[in-house]
Amino acid sequence: MARNADRRNSLMDAGIRVLAEAGARGLTHRAVDVAAGVPTGTTSNYFAGRDDLIAALVERIEERLTPDSDAVDSPPERPRDRHLVEEFVRDVARRLTGEPHVALALFELRLEATRRPTVAATLSEWRQRAFEADVRFHAAQGLPGGRTEIALLHHAIDGLMLDRLTIPLDTGVSTEEAVAALVDRILRTADV
Amino acid sequence: MARNADRRNSLMDAGIRVLAEAGARGLTHRAVDVAAGVPTGTTSNYFAGRDDLIAALVERIEERLTPDSDAVDSPPERPRDRHLVEEFVRDVARRLTGEPHVALALFELRLEATRRPTVAATLSEWRQRAFEADVRFHAAQGLPGGRTEIALLHHAIDGLMLDRLTIPLDTGVSTEEAVAALVDRILRTADV
Repeated sequence: MARNADRRNSLMDAGIRVLAEAGARGLTHRAVDVAAGVPTGTTSNYFAGRDDLIAALVERIEERLTPDSDAVDSPPERPRDRHLVEEFVRDVARRLTGEPHVALALFELRLEATRRPTVAATLSEWRQRAFEADVRFHAAQGLPGGRTEIALLHHAIDGLMLDRLTIPLDTGVSTEEAVAALVDRILRTADV
Repeated sequence: MARNADRRNSLMDAGIRVLAEAGARGLTHRAVDVAAGVPTGTTSNYFAGRDDLIAALVERIEERLTPDSDAVDSPPERPRDRHLVEEFVRDVARRLTGEPHVALALFELRLEATRRPTVAATLSEWRQRAFEADVRFHAAQGLPGGRTEIALLHHAIDGLMLDRLTIPLDTGVSTEEAVAALVDRILRTADV
C-alpha cells in the first residue's frame, strides 16, 4: 500500500516534469512512463484516462506547493503587519523558483484549462479554495489585507513568477526586492 | 507584393489562433495551413522552418498588441499623474482581453521559450525593448513611475491578464477595478 503510494507519487512527479519540459500537449501516459523509467503501461494502470492523470497531477502540484504549517507559524508576540506578510510571500516565491518545473507545470495547466473543461474545473476548484483559505488566514491572524488586497497580491506574484521562470526582463529589481515592494505597496493602505 | 503581405498576415493570424487553441506543441506548418484554409504547403512556402514561423508570429503579436499612437497621445494640459497612467494601462488590458487568443498565444510562447532557445531569444529581445520603451515614455512624458514601478506594473498586469484569460478567480474585483488599484498602489509612492 505504502509502496503503491510511493510509486504513484513518483509517476506524478515524472508527469510534472513532462508537463514542464514538453508542455501540456506532450503529456501522454507513454511520456510519463518514459520519464519515470517504468515499463510501458504502468502510468495507464494507475490513471486510466488523460483526465484522471491531470486531476492527479493537480493534486500533486498542490501538495508540493502548499507550505509546511511551520512556515506559516509565527511567534504570537510578532506584530501582524505587512512585514510578516512579506515573509510569507517571500517563502512562496522561494518555493516556486526553487522548484521551477512544478510552477511551470502549473502555468501549462492554466493554459490547458482554456482548452479542456475538465482541467478548468479541477484547477479552478483548487485555486478558488486556496484563495479563500488565504483570505481566512489573513482575517484569523489579524494580518493586513482583505479580499481585494489578497487578489491583487496573487495576480502580481503570479506575473512576477511567470517572468522569473521563463524569460526574465532585465529590470534591475531582484525577485526579493520585487516581492517586498509589491507586498508593501499593495498592503500599505490596508495596514493597521 | 501587397497581396503577398496580406497572405502573410492572414497566415500569421491563423498561426496565432493555432498557438492559442492547440498550444505551442500543436503549432505546425500543416496546422496553420488548415486553420488558414489554404493548400498544404502554403505556410512552408512563407516560413521555411519552425523557428522562422515562430519569429514571424512574435512579430505579428507585437504588431497586434502595440497601441496606436492615438492611444498614447493626450492633451498637453492633462496632468501627468497616475490617473493618466491608469488610462494607458486600462487600454492595454482592454486590448488583451478583447483579443484573448493573441494574449494566450503570447503566454504559450513564453512557456515555449523555456524549451527553445531561439524562441527565448526572439521573445526576450522584444519584451526588453518594450520595457525600455515604456520606461523612456514615462520619463519623456513626465509620468510617475521609474524603472522599478514599471517593472512591478508589468508583472502585476501580466498576472492579472493570465488570471482573466484562463480560469479567473472569483475575487469580487473586476478587471477595471484591479487595474485601477494596482496602478494606484504601485505608483502612489512615486507620484509627484
